[in-house]
Amino acid sequence: MKTLKIIKIGGNIIDNEAALSSFLEVFATINSPKILIHGGGKLATQLANQLGLEVKMIDGRRITDKATLDLITMVYAGKINKNIVAELQSKNCNAIGFSGADGNTIISKKRPVKPIDFGFVGDVKKVNIETLQVLLEHKVTPVFCALTHDKKGQLLNTNADTIASELAIGFAKYYQTELYYCFEKNGVLRDVSDENSVIREITTQSYQNLIDDKVIVDGMLPKLNNCVHAIEKNVYKVCIGKPEMLYDDKANFTTITK
Amino acid sequence: MKTLKIIKIGGNIIDNEAALSSFLEVFATINSPKILIHGGGKLATQLANQLGLEVKMIDGRRITDKATLDLITMVYAGKINKNIVAELQSKNCNAIGFSGADGNTIISKKRPVKPIDFGFVGDVKKVNIETLQVLLEHKVTPVFCALTHDKKGQLLNTNADTIASELAIGFAKYYQTELYYCFEKNGVLRDVSDENSVIREITTQSYQNLIDDKVIVDGMLPKLNNCVHAIEKNVYKVCIGKPEMLYDDKANFTTITK
Repeated sequence: MKTLKIIKIGGNIIDNEAALSSFLEVFATINSPKILIHGGGKLATQLANQLGLEVKMIDGRRITDKATLDLITMVYAGKINKNIVAELQSKNCNAIGFSGADGNTIISKKRPVKPIDFGFVGDVKKVNIETLQVLLEHKVTPVFCALTHDKKGQLLNTNADTIASELAIGFAKYYQTELYYCFEKNGVLRDVSDENSVIREITTQSYQNLIDDKVIVDGMLPKLNNCVHAIEKNVYKVCIGKPEMLYDDKANFTTITK
Repeated sequence: MKTLKIIKIGGNIIDNEAALSSFLEVFATINSPKILIHGGGKLATQLANQLGLEVKMIDGRRITDKATLDLITMVYAGKINKNIVAELQSKNCNAIGFSGADGNTIISKKRPVKPIDFGFVGDVKKVNIETLQVLLEHKVTPVFCALTHDKKGQLLNTNADTIASELAIGFAKYYQTELYYCFEKNGVLRDVSDENSVIREITTQSYQNLIDDKVIVDGMLPKLNNCVHAIEKNVYKVCIGKPEMLYDDKANFTTITK
């Protein structure tokens, strides 16, 4: 089977022009078929502030009301996505920007309004890879922002980590699929204050122990959940770390295995 | 040769939710391969006002400075384009949103800064249809917003009428290409105050007479220029009128012929 690399980058790279540019430089040179998924970063919040839009939160989680959905559609699918595509083209990587509505690639279901109404947030229901496969075969690189749709005309805000893992799972049958979560740390850390305490390997078994021992907490919980879910659904390889893991043989990072 | 319909809709449809929805209903049912190009409408100006951005004009023409380019990238490529794509998906039309950067489909050159510096405005230099052809063959419908790129990482604001005609010209060799400009009037009017004065046919020869007679003036000049250019470059058919021309046999509209 051919290798497919699915790479997710988060807000820390998006928000830093130099970091984004040097990441895209590396990404563009990856020879195998590849897909990029990007998060949103601080731009949406900045624009919300400029527009005087109130950010609604419940239990520390953002509520996606209609105005917020419009805003992230503009920022994620418009400004961030199209500028990434244009920059990749300048580096001779033939990219096409995608939301989950484009090519009907990711259908999601609006989250139930109880117990908490998160607004226009979608949980992934189905991934259609046919169109993406055709494009990959023609050396085109899809670049996804964190939006999906319900196939009834409604765009929905969806977690970028989840989009990455669901795409990887969708491709697992057809490609030896590698999933990379790039973020600001060297990987999953045993001691969050020590960048050298990277846990090199996490198995689906040791994962549970790390939760019980409260080593994996807070934001790392849903991220790791996506990783383990992907490995269980036959994604070949899942890695978490800094973008350096993509090219530096000596880089420290975390690999999730069965 | 297979028929390809390239249809451009302008601000008057984009700004009217009901008109847009009923247009997309018709568009979705078109059986032949098809491409949609949409203009921007008033949303960009509204958002500029909300953000307190000053709209800079020279000789009645808008200047696209960096802030304006960001804004139209958000509104055209983000909000408008993705909502059209999502709505087409709900009508079982498998659409993918495009700017000219996506798939490297439309490369343009930033307009020279003399005599007037229009800012980030691009004049089309080259159209690459390969990726679009692959998608059309797989029954995917590209939906273009009015942005192109310079292949050096810079997005550029480009006239939507021009994008439509340049795409049509690019496809003329491979498809029997029909180009439809949908706008708020029944067609090119002999008397601008009389909707019944539609000129049914304009040839490349009568075109010059209509300009000399000042029948074609103002905003119709560049529009007709795009039409005539397309016909001269072997586009099979070019029509201007209300969206009804797409399905109503009795509709009045203007056809441009050689």
